[in-house]
Amino acid sequence: MPHIESWVPVPAGSDFSIYNLPYGAFSRPVSPARLGIAIGTQILDLHAVASAGLLDDICDRRVFLGGTLNAFLAEGREVWRRTRLRIAALLRTDEAGDPRLRALDTAKFLVNQRDVRMLLPIEIGDYVDFYSSIEHATNLGRIFRPNGEPLMENWRHLPIGYHGRASTVVIDGTPVVRPSGQRRPPGSSAPVFGPSTRLDIELEIGFVTGPGNAMGTAIPTSRAREHIFGLVLVNDWSARDIQAWEYQPLGPFLGKSFATTVSPWIVPLDALDPFALPSPAQDPQPLPYLQAGGRWAYDINLEVDLQTKRMRDAGIAPQTISRTNYKELYWNMAQQLAHVTINGTAIRPGDLYASGTISGSTADSCGSLIELTWNGERPIVLPDGERRTFLEDGDTIALRGWCAAGDFRIGFGSARGTISPAR
Amino acid sequence: MPHIESWVPVPAGSDFSIYNLPYGAFSRPVSPARLGIAIGTQILDLHAVASAGLLDDICDRRVFLGGTLNAFLAEGREVWRRTRLRIAALLRTDEAGDPRLRALDTAKFLVNQRDVRMLLPIEIGDYVDFYSSIEHATNLGRIFRPNGEPLMENWRHLPIGYHGRASTVVIDGTPVVRPSGQRRPPGSSAPVFGPSTRLDIELEIGFVTGPGNAMGTAIPTSRAREHIFGLVLVNDWSARDIQAWEYQPLGPFLGKSFATTVSPWIVPLDALDPFALPSPAQDPQPLPYLQAGGRWAYDINLEVDLQTKRMRDAGIAPQTISRTNYKELYWNMAQQLAHVTINGTAIRPGDLYASGTISGSTADSCGSLIELTWNGERPIVLPDGERRTFLEDGDTIALRGWCAAGDFRIGFGSARGTISPAR
Repeated sequence: MPHIESWVPVPAGSDFSIYNLPYGAFSRPVSPARLGIAIGTQILDLHAVASAGLLDDICDRRVFLGGTLNAFLAEGREVWRRTRLRIAALLRTDEAGDPRLRALDTAKFLVNQRDVRMLLPIEIGDYVDFYSSIEHATNLGRIFRPNGEPLMENWRHLPIGYHGRASTVVIDGTPVVRPSGQRRPPGSSAPVFGPSTRLDIELEIGFVTGPGNAMGTAIPTSRAREHIFGLVLVNDWSARDIQAWEYQPLGPFLGKSFATTVSPWIVPLDALDPFALPSPAQDPQPLPYLQAGGRWAYDINLEVDLQTKRMRDAGIAPQTISRTNYKELYWNMAQQLAHVTINGTAIRPGDLYASGTISGSTADSCGSLIELTWNGERPIVLPDGERRTFLEDGDTIALRGWCAAGDFRIGFGSARGTISPAR
Repeated sequence: MPHIESWVPVPAGSDFSIYNLPYGAFSRPVSPARLGIAIGTQILDLHAVASAGLLDDICDRRVFLGGTLNAFLAEGREVWRRTRLRIAALLRTDEAGDPRLRALDTAKFLVNQRDVRMLLPIEIGDYVDFYSSIEHATNLGRIFRPNGEPLMENWRHLPIGYHGRASTVVIDGTPVVRPSGQRRPPGSSAPVFGPSTRLDIELEIGFVTGPGNAMGTAIPTSRAREHIFGLVLVNDWSARDIQAWEYQPLGPFLGKSFATTVSPWIVPLDALDPFALPSPAQDPQPLPYLQAGGRWAYDINLEVDLQTKRMRDAGIAPQTISRTNYKELYWNMAQQLAHVTINGTAIRPGDLYASGTISGSTADSCGSLIELTWNGERPIVLPDGERRTFLEDGDTIALRGWCAAGDFRIGFGSARGTISPAR
């Protein structure tokens, strides 16, 4: 990639280089939500940019004046591409730049990320969670069915998934109240009620959709790119004890529905193109509607950081408890979208489709505590001597994700949540 | 109940007596959606009523000027109650009536149901489908696990449910395209792709929510009534072959997500009060958070009508293939809502929570074809000699539901759908 300078300074190691330009929503105190694009430590205020007429040749400026991205998502790929190029041009300093923004009072177009609260930038229509990491599905099979085949018979034939709860998708930093519910203690015939004692995380990446399809029609893998806008980090918090008791025969429900945390920035697929790779081989070859040409794997580094309250109080930095990568996912986004719609299901702009837990092939590259501690048998030992199998009150989990090449970095920010005691 | 006359004529046997006053959304050709209330063969135009100032002392008239009920649902029970009393007063002819509407040009406030298209009256946030009929769950257990206990161990302890697809909830009369997908033929190790060959229905009733709760808090059964606005008929179309292959371990997904049909009218719970009954006994007694006092069963007659294309072409009336009643449902609405929120899940105005298939205890009172035909072993014989196990292209299913007492009736209209060939 050519080196491009932005007139907004980008500190070394920032997630938000000019190659990224992710979209989010923010609010200043007592102001309504606005859309913005992260650059370095700043946010470029899209409301201000659009109001100055700098996007009027691309689409109706009202697309940028609301508090969510849904109208922009509905515009489709050509508008996304032209907007991205324009924003880059307005920010770059070389001769390919567009000098109009710099000629104005730039302070009116930028806001410091420290001074705002980030908000969920999409109204989510439907939220689907897949189960697309073969390592994760295999690990869970080994833990729960130690004497059987770890993978179920259908797993290699279709991207298993289910509908999750849209109303409780929250932004980075939102506290997560420990859920209460029914669980059945080992050896007991009847359930008991109380706060979950096996509160877990799931490290995932989700894609956010653009234009929808008409109900009754499908989106083939060859057209998936037109319908996928970008990616976010997703933590699919999971209460394993509630889930274990409830999930037969209709799947996870209250074990998952209490909270799902996403990163504040949606990174456009266009920004991630330099990091696209061929997907892993699939055996057996999937049915034709699931065959996807092109480069649908993305080399995105992922990590999970844990900091307990005791660590925080003692000034001990968060401990990275897992490092993995999105690129090994068995089922890719194009296949997931083709599968969701093959029965005629309608998608809408702003749907969220999460990957499922992303686990690598080693013990320290798993995306959930149930795998990292092997169902609680091997506690994680933290720098201050604390041990963790599942999460305790006051624990903070932060997911991070980024692509890096040479001197630039394209990152997602973080998806953090701290566990509050059960009510 | 006292006899009340409406100045809008209500034909004998109409679903829409003055005791009903259900809410819906309609559009005339080239006009935007409006809210309305069914009365006899007419619709009282709520946009017109509100614009005439006849509801201004109850709440901001803008609540009634949009095309969906969500703002009204958010207002809460006192506004619902006062609006209902006002509409009844504006329509009744006795001395308890409010003469203001009759004094105006009433033609401007009424539209014939024949002249409009009905639209989905709510923007559905989350759609949940329960599994709350013990007869249905037992029947499916007997069919799929003939040598085991028909009911799973958790079934009597909690209202099993899962999240369904919100984007494909459609209104009465919308064609249903036969879904395609993967299924595994008996005896085969690999799946095949094609149109579903086991397309089924599920006769259900759903409740629509009013004001939401804050995330992290629960709605106890004692407060459920404040959060439940009214009921609709629901047909949870199901492709049994797709469902059977996909549903382990995360539950139904593409076997259900292609379409869910609801009746056009939301019948307020206040209208159904005269038909409320104590819920059936539960054994074992549920955990305290699921104990619900009050009368949460409703005596709603339900039927499923089937008309094939050949019957339609020959002028043969639809055949009623099942008659049942909502009142026997094991888990009631208050319990369902308390369960959904016990882990802190947020509900929102306009969520839809369906009961799950409602089956009675006899062979002809089941709410699905898989039960009525015992997994296809006992075809239904139709008046023209045709046989049905599962649905064929051109078949029309109509669900109907009503309460009846003396000279009045409170009905839901119908939830109809005709199967179009797979694309």
